[in-house]
Amino acid sequence: MERNTLRSKSSLVVILTDFGSRSPFPGIMKGVMLTINPELEFVDLSNDITPYNVMEALFVLKHSLHYFPDGSIFLVVVDPGVGSERKGLIVKTKKHVFVAPDNGVLSFLFDTNPEVWKITYKPERLSKTFHGRDIFAPVVAKLSLGVDPGTLGKRHYNPVKIEIPEPEIKKDKILGRVIFIDNFGNCTTNIEQKYLHEIPRALIIKNQHIEKFVSSYSEAKEGQPIMIINSFGFLEIAINQGNASKTLGIEAGDEVILLISPSSSSQTPPGQG
Amino acid sequence: MERNTLRSKSSLVVILTDFGSRSPFPGIMKGVMLTINPELEFVDLSNDITPYNVMEALFVLKHSLHYFPDGSIFLVVVDPGVGSERKGLIVKTKKHVFVAPDNGVLSFLFDTNPEVWKITYKPERLSKTFHGRDIFAPVVAKLSLGVDPGTLGKRHYNPVKIEIPEPEIKKDKILGRVIFIDNFGNCTTNIEQKYLHEIPRALIIKNQHIEKFVSSYSEAKEGQPIMIINSFGFLEIAINQGNASKTLGIEAGDEVILLISPSSSSQTPPGQG
Amino acid sequence: MERNTLRSKSSLVVILTDFGSRSPFPGIMKGVMLTINPELEFVDLSNDITPYNVMEALFVLKHSLHYFPDGSIFLVVVDPGVGSERKGLIVKTKKHVFVAPDNGVLSFLFDTNPEVWKITYKPERLSKTFHGRDIFAPVVAKLSLGVDPGTLGKRHYNPVKIEIPEPEIKKDKILGRVIFIDNFGNCTTNIEQKYLHEIPRALIIKNQHIEKFVSSYSEAKEGQPIMIINSFGFLEIAINQGNASKTLGIEAGDEVILLISPSSSSQTPPGQG
Repeated sequence: MERNTLRSKSSLVVILTDFGSRSPFPGIMKGVMLTINPELEFVDLSNDITPYNVMEALFVLKHSLHYFPDGSIFLVVVDPGVGSERKGLIVKTKKHVFVAPDNGVLSFLFDTNPEVWKITYKPERLSKTFHGRDIFAPVVAKLSLGVDPGTLGKRHYNPVKIEIPEPEIKKDKILGRVIFIDNFGNCTTNIEQKYLHEIPRALIIKNQHIEKFVSSYSEAKEGQPIMIINSFGFLEIAINQGNASKTLGIEAGDEVILLISPSSSSQTPPGQG
Repeated sequence: MERNTLRSKSSLVVILTDFGSRSPFPGIMKGVMLTINPELEFVDLSNDITPYNVMEALFVLKHSLHYFPDGSIFLVVVDPGVGSERKGLIVKTKKHVFVAPDNGVLSFLFDTNPEVWKITYKPERLSKTFHGRDIFAPVVAKLSLGVDPGTLGKRHYNPVKIEIPEPEIKKDKILGRVIFIDNFGNCTTNIEQKYLHEIPRALIIKNQHIEKFVSSYSEAKEGQPIMIINSFGFLEIAINQGNASKTLGIEAGDEVILLISPSSSSQTPPGQG
Repeated sequence: MERNTLRSKSSLVVILTDFGSRSPFPGIMKGVMLTINPELEFVDLSNDITPYNVMEALFVLKHSLHYFPDGSIFLVVVDPGVGSERKGLIVKTKKHVFVAPDNGVLSFLFDTNPEVWKITYKPERLSKTFHGRDIFAPVVAKLSLGVDPGTLGKRHYNPVKIEIPEPEIKKDKILGRVIFIDNFGNCTTNIEQKYLHEIPRALIIKNQHIEKFVSSYSEAKEGQPIMIINSFGFLEIAINQGNASKTLGIEAGDEVILLISPSSSSQTPPGQG
């Protein structure tokens, strides 16, 4: 029975925030949770989402969560509206539970009709600047002990949704954007593999043309800018053993133009195979 | 009986260092501790205290420790004097145990008359540059197994104390300092909420006047510099969805002047309430 | 019996990568491993090896691994050749198990004749850009459950070896290199303590002479450049309570010339003692 699944105990909490891995705030949340449930285990998915960037957190969460065990609880605190009237959410899908501010960061989950609660839990002491510590962490810890979400919130039917910016598909080009840059300077665009029905002719970013499309970094010469389908399943701009972001001056949000053949819609897609 | 509490086993070690979260040194200390006690769990409170900054470590520790479970052991290694004659300490309060160099980083604990030992434990191999690995980590692991502190050190009655710089309260102003800057560029001052008996008239930092006082970030317009009481309970300079440190050029140690009304001593304090 | 040791269960995985501690990729690997073996514990040795720098990873691993418990499994993913024909390895020494790309990062282990397997395990879905997630993490998790390496790979007798650059010993000088710079700006050279039979006369780096040799940082004045034997057992350039890398403009790879006395080969070595 679904309710039983929900009320069973969980021990893994996956943390995603913009607090900074250098800061004490993720550790403080862990202390709060361990005080309530000493059996908890934590994985930091990342504490270095670009500050206030709800969309980046959404992207990372959406494309990472299926690698975590069933029953994991995700604590997502990218919360530019902390202290305002924005609500907090508990969202339960078939496999996972999510606790986050109601600011759209969980938007991609709502298509599958999860159970959603608006958090009504109030701690004894509530700051107006750190609900991660005062509300979300204790709610996660209580859920992990099997506490019924209905005692921590009430059912909610219109959570905030944000539009995930999709690429614009034209006859002979696709207009997209850089949405994530990793530690290697690899630049993930919002152009998913499914839009590529053949090898693209070229990619233009900041007036620079990239024509080499590879299926693994090592197919390229060192220092050569390339297009590749990355491990999230999206088109990425990279430089083999280099840093595309620094070398090409690319930042998150930059526009990309992908040139494709006009008649390419029914061919076999390239990529990871 | 107090002794029994101390000798009972602990499993949570909270780590606070200036080693850098990028460096292998926190991981090496964990390896040393797990070799002695494989049951240990760790929370990194932070490994990115500003190098050598004992006062910053003290501030973070003092305002974080009450969020951790009773029985936690705190391993604090901000240790500019490593390899010198400075001692190592074991400090036991009613709730927690602390292991740290005797350089004042635990000063704030001594008002409550904790039990204090000077570490006499000597490892087989002792470097002169990494006592965190060679002394403090093994001492923590042994304490976690219930080893009596008296076998690892001897009682000590005059640990090093450092003065925590208090703000200077004048008739119509408070002179303080920036003591901590977080990942969002929010600048914590040493002016605690208790000194604010009414909403301050203005704050001056580096010849810049800030007049807006809010109780949550979202009360301010985006980009507007504000004063706020933060989650540590201290006056903070911030910019809603911006970075006050970068925008206003603020660094740790900078002086702040807080303008208050001359006759404000007995009114209701503002803030988080 | 050796086989039994290998097939026994392990619970500690030590992670060393160049993914960046800010990135979600180490967390994703942990999710993959916990999905296979929920009992695993992790220590991040570092996720901030300089991108693509196999030699730096080798150095950190070689000088850290003896601090971890017997039975630990090391997951080492510094993998500039990901997606190419380079193999993956399982290496079993008397104390530990290692899983890594076959790019030389484990070279230092091969002198002791460990058991080596070439990974043949193939996941259902294999990207060409993130074998850490798709191959190495599941292999580690399966090994931790006691799965026989022979079912995940086949014995392999010529793994890739890379030369660890040794210093050049001349009559009156030693020519070395900076190989690792830590969070304090301390610069580790490749000159091991065993090469120093007396206190060196001076060290030259980038036309700067350093003449002070100390056994602990605190023997030096604040701001004074020094030579010291560090906690890895190597000659290091440091500045007491300062940052030698920034102040002296030192980067990894820079050459150092250590001036020694012509007749110093049989004296007692200086250092940590």
